[in-house]
Amino acid sequence: MDKETKDIGEVVLAPPDGGAEHRPAPPARLLGTSTGRALLVAAVMLATLVGVGGLALGGGTGRPAAGPAQRPVEAAAAARSAERPEGCVAPDRRLNLYAVELPRDPATNQVRLGYGLTPQTASYPGPTMEMIEGECLAITLHNQVPAATLEALRTDPEHPVGVSLHVHGVKYTQQSDGTVHSNSFVPPGASRTYFWFAKPRTGASQGTAGYWWYHDHVVGGPHGTQGLRSGLFGGLVVRRQGDPRPDRTYVTVFGDRQTINLRRSADADTCDPVDPVPGPTCLVAKLGERVEFIVIGIGDDMHTFHVHGHSWADTRTGLAEGSKALVDSIPIIDNKTLGPGDSFGVQIVAGDSVGPGHWMLHCHMQFHSDLGMSTTLHVLDENGQMPPHAGGHAPAAPAGGAAAPAGGHANHR
Amino acid sequence: MDKETKDIGEVVLAPPDGGAEHRPAPPARLLGTSTGRALLVAAVMLATLVGVGGLALGGGTGRPAAGPAQRPVEAAAAARSAERPEGCVAPDRRLNLYAVELPRDPATNQVRLGYGLTPQTASYPGPTMEMIEGECLAITLHNQVPAATLEALRTDPEHPVGVSLHVHGVKYTQQSDGTVHSNSFVPPGASRTYFWFAKPRTGASQGTAGYWWYHDHVVGGPHGTQGLRSGLFGGLVVRRQGDPRPDRTYVTVFGDRQTINLRRSADADTCDPVDPVPGPTCLVAKLGERVEFIVIGIGDDMHTFHVHGHSWADTRTGLAEGSKALVDSIPIIDNKTLGPGDSFGVQIVAGDSVGPGHWMLHCHMQFHSDLGMSTTLHVLDENGQMPPHAGGHAPAAPAGGAAAPAGGHANHR
Amino acid sequence: MDKETKDIGEVVLAPPDGGAEHRPAPPARLLGTSTGRALLVAAVMLATLVGVGGLALGGGTGRPAAGPAQRPVEAAAAARSAERPEGCVAPDRRLNLYAVELPRDPATNQVRLGYGLTPQTASYPGPTMEMIEGECLAITLHNQVPAATLEALRTDPEHPVGVSLHVHGVKYTQQSDGTVHSNSFVPPGASRTYFWFAKPRTGASQGTAGYWWYHDHVVGGPHGTQGLRSGLFGGLVVRRQGDPRPDRTYVTVFGDRQTINLRRSADADTCDPVDPVPGPTCLVAKLGERVEFIVIGIGDDMHTFHVHGHSWADTRTGLAEGSKALVDSIPIIDNKTLGPGDSFGVQIVAGDSVGPGHWMLHCHMQFHSDLGMSTTLHVLDENGQMPPHAGGHAPAAPAGGAAAPAGGHANHR
Repeated sequence: MDKETKDIGEVVLAPPDGGAEHRPAPPARLLGTSTGRALLVAAVMLATLVGVGGLALGGGTGRPAAGPAQRPVEAAAAARSAERPEGCVAPDRRLNLYAVELPRDPATNQVRLGYGLTPQTASYPGPTMEMIEGECLAITLHNQVPAATLEALRTDPEHPVGVSLHVHGVKYTQQSDGTVHSNSFVPPGASRTYFWFAKPRTGASQGTAGYWWYHDHVVGGPHGTQGLRSGLFGGLVVRRQGDPRPDRTYVTVFGDRQTINLRRSADADTCDPVDPVPGPTCLVAKLGERVEFIVIGIGDDMHTFHVHGHSWADTRTGLAEGSKALVDSIPIIDNKTLGPGDSFGVQIVAGDSVGPGHWMLHCHMQFHSDLGMSTTLHVLDENGQMPPHAGGHAPAAPAGGAAAPAGGHANHR
Repeated sequence: MDKETKDIGEVVLAPPDGGAEHRPAPPARLLGTSTGRALLVAAVMLATLVGVGGLALGGGTGRPAAGPAQRPVEAAAAARSAERPEGCVAPDRRLNLYAVELPRDPATNQVRLGYGLTPQTASYPGPTMEMIEGECLAITLHNQVPAATLEALRTDPEHPVGVSLHVHGVKYTQQSDGTVHSNSFVPPGASRTYFWFAKPRTGASQGTAGYWWYHDHVVGGPHGTQGLRSGLFGGLVVRRQGDPRPDRTYVTVFGDRQTINLRRSADADTCDPVDPVPGPTCLVAKLGERVEFIVIGIGDDMHTFHVHGHSWADTRTGLAEGSKALVDSIPIIDNKTLGPGDSFGVQIVAGDSVGPGHWMLHCHMQFHSDLGMSTTLHVLDENGQMPPHAGGHAPAAPAGGAAAPAGGHANHR
Repeated sequence: MDKETKDIGEVVLAPPDGGAEHRPAPPARLLGTSTGRALLVAAVMLATLVGVGGLALGGGTGRPAAGPAQRPVEAAAAARSAERPEGCVAPDRRLNLYAVELPRDPATNQVRLGYGLTPQTASYPGPTMEMIEGECLAITLHNQVPAATLEALRTDPEHPVGVSLHVHGVKYTQQSDGTVHSNSFVPPGASRTYFWFAKPRTGASQGTAGYWWYHDHVVGGPHGTQGLRSGLFGGLVVRRQGDPRPDRTYVTVFGDRQTINLRRSADADTCDPVDPVPGPTCLVAKLGERVEFIVIGIGDDMHTFHVHGHSWADTRTGLAEGSKALVDSIPIIDNKTLGPGDSFGVQIVAGDSVGPGHWMLHCHMQFHSDLGMSTTLHVLDENGQMPPHAGGHAPAAPAGGAAAPAGGHANHR
């Protein structure tokens, strides 16, 4: 059954039906995934000599791998060479990122966590990261989420407690993978530095420019399902030298329970009409501004991203440029399917040809939009105002509404 | 739970579980969406002076926006400038479109509505629209669907009664948005003119050429779910100067209940063998004809579009042309995922290399095709005939069928 | 309801609810699909004279088409011209393919079938086929699956018993379609030769180079749902002259019950740490090797394919090459949605920039990965060894694990 999570607090770790599933008892505290299993087997079998030149998954030290208790010490030496991805000689920038607990969702009472550049500014989505190809970033993640909160989010008491930072698209070593099996997560109260390298486009490399995202991979289980569900995710854009810069960037995360950025219905569009503050729940732009959306899928469900009145190119940048043959081959679209883990970028000129107004932005799965997976791109005029009655023109004939008389006919042409 | 609608008559407006959802009482008859909410807030707060140059969602008139009852009058003046999208100086063509009620689905007894260029020719899908970039179209929609029918399709008595015309891909102002919040729908017995502009590709514009669709956005709820479910949709192709023209164009709408154009099983393929009439339930072509499919996803479910024996380029046109590097980069596919709201175009040469025959066209989700989401592209020979036994070659060994003996072996090479 | 098959043995042929479905009684043993119906109608109506030049689905012989019992004899003559697709003058290669029954799935007890180049080497996925554009392949399929097994997999006793070979992307006539309505399947104990033509790219043809797959289309029902579910599928890559060759190719089939190649959890990653044997359940490569994945979707569910630490171009080859404008337009991705029937190729350089390690490869739908739809790409160092602690670096602060103290703070920068 293709399930759709209706309660974000629910933990999906029930054993599948349809057959007995034999899970070996976890031999160490960190295991449980197939990867963990491979590591375990490696640890057990390493007493066997491994031939040089062959394929062998175990380490070549000739002695059993250390158990969890000994790992930190031994790993210190090995870590140095594998800490940064090749090409990242030294970080170009360093920043701190805090994982904190936020007030529970007022509508659902679900736990909310967030990433922030400061503990006070943590949010979901977390801060939008921007890099340019060639850049190396060092991000120190501080886990300030109470241990009790993290413990409550897991169903398997053997699963470790911590948060992590896993990123899509850019380059990182296993030490920045943000996974359990690589021990690259952060226990409560601790911190850890992750290295991201936006490897540039060269003859030998296709580069890493693109619309990506980052997220926890540890909270609640080996895939971070509870971390994602609670709010530990954010957008990342890697630009290539020469890429056009937008005037505004919004992150729209399409997720379970018919949510955009974990909100739905009125909670997804909280723009103040007098002083709208652009943000995750207030998509607003002036006429002619270049607006960029980083669209991300999370959770269990499929979605489609649709904007009224605007379209974009289905390319790396959301724009179509180049020779006539190239441009002619590129689809222009206004609706795009995305599954969990997918991310793409949309660039539009607000109100281009269509003018100001309240332009709907929604999932086009009908039951999703009907249940509130819908918000609005508010396009203001050049003065930053919504023109009177923009989007308020009434039908030409007897006024709409439930009580409207139905018999009239008035072709207003 | 990822639901799949089994009864098209069902209305999906049930409140989601998993948490209390606080819906504010609708203050006016048109509200209920988050967009509607923003409009309401705007109306309430407009007495507050709005600073010039800032971002403000409310109108800048300095007085409260009119309530629904007053809107039509006030909107008349504002409408003139915002009626047509920029670039559409005057319509190049005008046409009438009629929304009517059709006989109920014989298999399911569900309500059927259709668009038609005349009331007598209404169908689902509606007429396939074709535009060329640069063209501006004025379409006057006449709502001839009985009010009682539309009332029966809504569950919320506050939701207005009407039909609309919402289009993908081309340019239109809020007045042609076809939505409730913009009052751009048509009450029963009334009519309204919508303007579509196929903005051309220029240095500053990526153009609007593509495979699109149009549909109701009002029947039953603010996303037109009941309108779509009943048949109010159709295909639109916008061509760019120089695009290849097909010999035949078919629209295949993949939707809920395992349907193609709202039909399944035998109802999806009703070609008369002697005098097949090409249409939504009869896909037929002669060998060598260029056939174009406009593939559209509607409803709640994901699908994949697959054709036997034929493939196409995953580009704007369905064709691959240009430099070797460009062509080499373009995927050729014969199966493509589409979600609700997605639309794309396929161009194939009927029977190219593979000859005449009954070529299956189906959703490749196994339970969808097993339940009848499958039809046939009948490719006839040059004389417009199906060769004897095309697709009728029996297995070389003991004849197939349930009763066939199973032991024989006859390699016919 | 969007179902997700939990028991592969289940047969999905239940009539849909939501309305009466009138299925005409099957007039012959082969019918049941809409295509079958069209054939039947053709047979019935062919006594009517068919006008030359018009469109007619029935054969032009002027006499009723033969019923199933007579078909084999009559088809013999017609078969000769329609046996091979246009352009395939003579097969460049011939090979045998055996469909056999394999031991049942140890975890679920479900039936397992496989294709093999010999009966002894049959597997699921079947052997990966490789062709180059211009090549014509003759594959003789020998059905060695016991009739009783095939009979048990169908619920409709009218459905024929046999296996077939249906292929995506390349060219074939109806006689190589592998479907029931075309009688191109193989009863138990029999064999049949299928012809595949990898039509080349020319001015008039877009070619057939791409990542494709082949599968049964007959077992259990007219769409081969039970054949697919049991293991009758495999990958096919068609290369274009000049395409880069990988060092290793893996097929990863994403299917129902949260499976990769029909396995999940530990069964999906069975690499021996000392002597890993590359294969469907052991994805392993040395640092710097070019690894190709053929990614295929089967069954009823949507999935997303994600690899940690690596990314690829969303093109025909998985690589991005050409002019700056072209390359700049191509999305680089590390996560891609695929539905049943979809197939695409990924090319990566193992460990590029990121080094050796246990790199997760999983479906990013959270409940899928949590339920075991996850495996590992094991990237070894240049010597074919997994470096000590690759992927084993512990958190800098208090060791992870359930019992770890949560209060410590140790920024290891």
